[in-house]
Amino acid sequence: MQFALDERLERDSELVTVLGLCQLRLMKDSRWPWLMLVPQRAGVSEIFELTPLDQTLLTFETNAVAAALKTATGARKINVGALGNIVPQLHVHIVARMEADPNWPGPIWGHGSAEPYRDGAEQDFLKKLIEAL
Amino acid sequence: MQFALDERLERDSELVTVLGLCQLRLMKDSRWPWLMLVPQRAGVSEIFELTPLDQTLLTFETNAVAAALKTATGARKINVGALGNIVPQLHVHIVARMEADPNWPGPIWGHGSAEPYRDGAEQDFLKKLIEAL
Repeated sequence: MQFALDERLERDSELVTVLGLCQLRLMKDSRWPWLMLVPQRAGVSEIFELTPLDQTLLTFETNAVAAALKTATGARKINVGALGNIVPQLHVHIVARMEADPNWPGPIWGHGSAEPYRDGAEQDFLKKLIEAL
Repeated sequence: MQFALDERLERDSELVTVLGLCQLRLMKDSRWPWLMLVPQRAGVSEIFELTPLDQTLLTFETNAVAAALKTATGARKINVGALGNIVPQLHVHIVARMEADPNWPGPIWGHGSAEPYRDGAEQDFLKKLIEAL
């Protein structure tokens, strides 16, 4: 079985780059600097279903992206989560949180509706992120 | 600086066992089978602040506990999250989710109030978990 990105993940995010294991994607929601890693492996919905090597790669990529996101945003806290209650294809959320952001200190998931990026804000953010990576 | 468990984490959970890196703790909330791993390292609030070896250990322990939790509960999905917006000491939540549980398919964090375990339900759950581990 070949990897194919879930339709909902594809609709809600856009590709930033491809790392060793994962697609790094930006969520189409400007309320938080919100990235997603999707391991390019078919039929996997839990991290423990990956091979040990892939688990280690995912850890490495998650932490590299999380550290870069902290540098790029000056966030107070990085939130990392693998939920998958709605979309079972394994995906890891990496989100920069600030004290003044929507729903702080609660979680971002299930809160309100996405707000698209405007006026080049997305390019500005991605430029900083790529530099930090 | 020596590791000391955060007071709030201590109050809201109880020790199940100590693994190579982490304390494995059970949250005092029977609404979901909800475990927590706390790396016994001082002054760390983000996973990427751990050494590479500790990051790998945390991945190994997280996935071993997540797989055991799935076996013990028959959960539809395991949710794994490191948020830390309220308690900065690094801790990883590992939660078994079912379609009929409170706030499905939304997140567990910030939802309602804890409900204590009663009538030996905690011992029954921990027995199954330890067998699966």
